[in-house]
Amino acid sequence: MDSHLYEQKILNHQLLNLLQEFGHIGRTATNGISRLTASPEDKQARDHLCQWLKDHGLTVLVDAIGNIFGVLDLDTKNSNTAFFCGSHLDSQPNGGNYDGCLGVVCASIAALDLKEKVARNEISPTFRYYVVACWTGEEGARFQPSLIGSSVFSGNLSVDDAWLLQDSHGISLKDALKTIGYLGNDRAPRPGFYLELHIEQGTRLEDSGHSIGLVETCWGAEKLRILIKGEAAHTGPTPMDRRRNALLAASQIVLEVETISTHAKNSLHSSVGRMKLSPNSPNTVVENAELWAEFRSASQAELDSAKSHLKDHLARVGEQTGCEISITNHEKRNVIRFDQAAVSQAAMAIDKTDIPYQRLDTISGHDAIRLQAVCPSALLFVPSRGGITHSPKEYTSNEDVCTGFRAMTTVLARLISQTRG
Amino acid sequence: MDSHLYEQKILNHQLLNLLQEFGHIGRTATNGISRLTASPEDKQARDHLCQWLKDHGLTVLVDAIGNIFGVLDLDTKNSNTAFFCGSHLDSQPNGGNYDGCLGVVCASIAALDLKEKVARNEISPTFRYYVVACWTGEEGARFQPSLIGSSVFSGNLSVDDAWLLQDSHGISLKDALKTIGYLGNDRAPRPGFYLELHIEQGTRLEDSGHSIGLVETCWGAEKLRILIKGEAAHTGPTPMDRRRNALLAASQIVLEVETISTHAKNSLHSSVGRMKLSPNSPNTVVENAELWAEFRSASQAELDSAKSHLKDHLARVGEQTGCEISITNHEKRNVIRFDQAAVSQAAMAIDKTDIPYQRLDTISGHDAIRLQAVCPSALLFVPSRGGITHSPKEYTSNEDVCTGFRAMTTVLARLISQTRG
Repeated sequence: MDSHLYEQKILNHQLLNLLQEFGHIGRTATNGISRLTASPEDKQARDHLCQWLKDHGLTVLVDAIGNIFGVLDLDTKNSNTAFFCGSHLDSQPNGGNYDGCLGVVCASIAALDLKEKVARNEISPTFRYYVVACWTGEEGARFQPSLIGSSVFSGNLSVDDAWLLQDSHGISLKDALKTIGYLGNDRAPRPGFYLELHIEQGTRLEDSGHSIGLVETCWGAEKLRILIKGEAAHTGPTPMDRRRNALLAASQIVLEVETISTHAKNSLHSSVGRMKLSPNSPNTVVENAELWAEFRSASQAELDSAKSHLKDHLARVGEQTGCEISITNHEKRNVIRFDQAAVSQAAMAIDKTDIPYQRLDTISGHDAIRLQAVCPSALLFVPSRGGITHSPKEYTSNEDVCTGFRAMTTVLARLISQTRG
Repeated sequence: MDSHLYEQKILNHQLLNLLQEFGHIGRTATNGISRLTASPEDKQARDHLCQWLKDHGLTVLVDAIGNIFGVLDLDTKNSNTAFFCGSHLDSQPNGGNYDGCLGVVCASIAALDLKEKVARNEISPTFRYYVVACWTGEEGARFQPSLIGSSVFSGNLSVDDAWLLQDSHGISLKDALKTIGYLGNDRAPRPGFYLELHIEQGTRLEDSGHSIGLVETCWGAEKLRILIKGEAAHTGPTPMDRRRNALLAASQIVLEVETISTHAKNSLHSSVGRMKLSPNSPNTVVENAELWAEFRSASQAELDSAKSHLKDHLARVGEQTGCEISITNHEKRNVIRFDQAAVSQAAMAIDKTDIPYQRLDTISGHDAIRLQAVCPSALLFVPSRGGITHSPKEYTSNEDVCTGFRAMTTVLARLISQTRG
């Protein structure tokens, strides 16, 4: 076995080990992962990462929104910018171990590889630092919106507004971060590039038989929080025609959100993933319902049309059910194209390997989307079996994980050596 | 003012005072009442009742399901049965101060009146005891089903099964009762009659201008708990046609439950008052949904038809959405007619007053329905403004409260003097 193959084997071994270690943190009864942002399980995962980074010679920084940075000083002359590589460790309430975690683990192991290759002069970085990044609150599960840490880092969201975000129990993100000891005040080095490896969470790679997806575009999203105010009443004696039933209105809206995407065929995805009812008691007509609805598409025109269609529907449902319906929060994520030069460079790097890849879109949001606002970014996908994600059944084979890591380090080696502006 | 009018005035004063005192226990931010079964607020209300009963010379007993009995020994010869009068102190999460509480308060103040009149030989009871009853868990809000305490007392539900009932946090009713100190082991005297005063929770009295409703029949109910199992998936990339969205199925069912009652015009009431979703996270397709659905009607045939119609619909929705749908719990409450002799006696008693009353049905369940299984029972209604109940807006005027109390004591005086079998 040649020394390169041997080194790769050792790295793969470390990679799978570290991935497995995280897989024990926040394990649920159904073998899923529950690491809600700033929960005790999130803290445990963060502590594990920080310890690992320190053990391997990286300097650990934590910023005001709890983003963790493992900094490797490459001692590059005439540069003070950093090459960032990372993802997130938080999860859905019963998600899988690959979503986010895989990117953080690959970025961490890549630091070892990079250090070695720089020492041997196989790579000559043009960046002063290599930074392993772990972004706070990517999932939007405990705190909404999603992509909180990377939004604050990239200036999309102020840290003051982010601190005030509350979970469903009214606990603020600031207090939650303080509780787990991750309300820091460090400043990360200035980002010059951001690279992220993530699972596809779809089936295009699996369907086409490719090992790597090179993401060109991210679908835009319209996320709407809808509040429906009806009237509490006894479910028994209250005459049916005098009720103002918020759940009745909510159910009609859920179906309409679905119908809008059915009409759009596959170019628009939609969903209501969360609904909060009160008083939510069997013998009382539902007084208030709150819905988290979303549309996603690669076409801004289609998103605008869906939103306008839904608004008309809300007015009709309000009239029909006697409920007051309003949109209380609106998050718009534009359609975003990744830096074309970076995508070309990444493609050229993978072209030199035997790894089959394809260019594609991402429908889900990722921290790389936010980073693209402050520096060129690249996003690589590995296959997800059956496209299943946010579920304990989420799975990527060890082979695909290791191929993904190899593609990522190849891309990293090329991009970190490019002259930056 | 004659002495009877003066006495009535004093009793009314005590009645409104005591009612107001309970109105401060469990008061919510929106001026509603939250006294969920075996909560700290329920304990506070129970403690207040027990203290009042003791202060007024009644012996307080607590049985194994936490029912409270304030016993007045009337020293009647040749009898060992009791005349029960009462209702409940628990409430919906943000209910009103009249639902249940009014009946307990009236039963308590009636004890003072009765004692006085027996001492003066104005009433010659044929029952050994008069018992103020406060039944546990009538509302079905924290623990389901509703009417727990009266169901156990009347043999409709075993105490062992009732103890095992769990709230949404998995706390058993037995533990909850133990925590608040109301897991007793007293036995109440044998019931010979049960009388209850309750708010109507509908608009028939208001519409017809009557002060009292004399209940002849209680509508039957079919209460179904429906479990929908879909599959968790990312709301973004997962292809729309590969999703198994439990909320989509649930919304269709909510609308169908409504449609069934629309078809039945006003002879069938229906509702889904509670729905539980998981993981209930904005970026995840809803995996599981649980619905609490109900139908109510005075016609058993109509209930059967509604249930069978819904079952067919569940099968169709399951097929269409790819979700597994099952009925996990089924509570059937038969159409019940109150004891005809008791209704006639009550009517004759009120006929001798100037109080306008009408005979009517009750659509909501009441503890009196359960008691009717072990002894003749009578249920009187007072008007609810606008029919609004299970809401902070629930209201009955002081005048209607006092008229209701006068009707109740009139009925009580007649029924407690009848020769029992």
